[in-house]
Amino acid sequence: MRLAELSERSGVSTATIKYYLREGLLPPGERLTATKAEYGEEHLRRLRLVRALIQVGRMPVATAREVLKAAEDESLSQHLRLGAAVWALPHGPGPDKNAPDTARAREEANALLDQLGWASGRDARDDSPAYRMLVEAIVSLARLGYPHDTGHLLPYARLASELAVHELDVVETYDTPSEQIEASVALTVLYEPVLLSLRRLAQAQESGRRFDQA
Amino acid sequence: MRLAELSERSGVSTATIKYYLREGLLPPGERLTATKAEYGEEHLRRLRLVRALIQVGRMPVATAREVLKAAEDESLSQHLRLGAAVWALPHGPGPDKNAPDTARAREEANALLDQLGWASGRDARDDSPAYRMLVEAIVSLARLGYPHDTGHLLPYARLASELAVHELDVVETYDTPSEQIEASVALTVLYEPVLLSLRRLAQAQESGRRFDQA
Repeated sequence: MRLAELSERSGVSTATIKYYLREGLLPPGERLTATKAEYGEEHLRRLRLVRALIQVGRMPVATAREVLKAAEDESLSQHLRLGAAVWALPHGPGPDKNAPDTARAREEANALLDQLGWASGRDARDDSPAYRMLVEAIVSLARLGYPHDTGHLLPYARLASELAVHELDVVETYDTPSEQIEASVALTVLYEPVLLSLRRLAQAQESGRRFDQA
Repeated sequence: MRLAELSERSGVSTATIKYYLREGLLPPGERLTATKAEYGEEHLRRLRLVRALIQVGRMPVATAREVLKAAEDESLSQHLRLGAAVWALPHGPGPDKNAPDTARAREEANALLDQLGWASGRDARDDSPAYRMLVEAIVSLARLGYPHDTGHLLPYARLASELAVHELDVVETYDTPSEQIEASVALTVLYEPVLLSLRRLAQAQESGRRFDQA
């Protein structure tokens, strides 16, 4: 398809598509003449992923480019490509390494992950942005005097684990390894607000059940 | 306790505490002399909640004040106070009401909530920030061509529901209605990064289990 059709089918303006092409977020089309190029379904798919990262994930262009680069690296195994792409997603600030309570929070995070048997990459934990985000969250809970022991964290991990099985089932409905990686990154970002909004709606529902006797 | 002790026990500087007092985020202490006031355990607790909202929830001071005002309104029932406080938490942008796909997304959100029996406040749904956040998330999924039917959303809702039971059990371990509301708001904010980071760690674990045969 030509640029105009790519724009129409994706709902993204031609000016924005040209910008993504210049920024390397979208691979170039197949050159037809000096001013015309042909685009395929993979461009449409990639454009969707870019929109998910930038519009919903609110990522700067440079971060989105890093995520896409990791997703594209065919020298890596499927697990590593997937991991590298999700790894590159922004995770909020990590913990202050020099704070005295970071060491204690790290021990608590490790105790939780060990109990779950999520031992893969134990040595690499400190480099994982999701792990650092967990440690930072435990530091905040501890500093503010709220519960943060394994018993309180475990229900979240158990549910996250069930969710991951469902999510990878969805990812595996996509045909090729590249589509699976793209879907995995997009769904990680796009389902975050689904999860957070349903958590609040469920809290309201449960609170009504318990307290609203009137 | 005096201001200096409140600062020491909370880890918040006296300058910041004075700022929160001026901004109405912290109720005034009991005046002893023109320059001295006495603070109680409730000030310490409130200070923790303010830190959770501003530091972890990254809320502007005006939003935090609104959340606290709702939590404090003793004319409301416990359920409504709790709801009002969580209601006032920021939820990201709502959907564009004029977009043609918003109506369809709203129907899908309603079908999901009806199937779950989360019927409370069906008429008030459009006013609920968490509901609007859900609709906006469905709009994004639909626009980008990712699955967003009830079958795909239901697992998230079911797990959110289990989580809400656990979370309200934790809230009910606090003694007074005011402490319960404060804990509920703080835990809603503080456990969000716990949930999101564990979701990513669980995905990595599950992805390794499926794809990492090497």
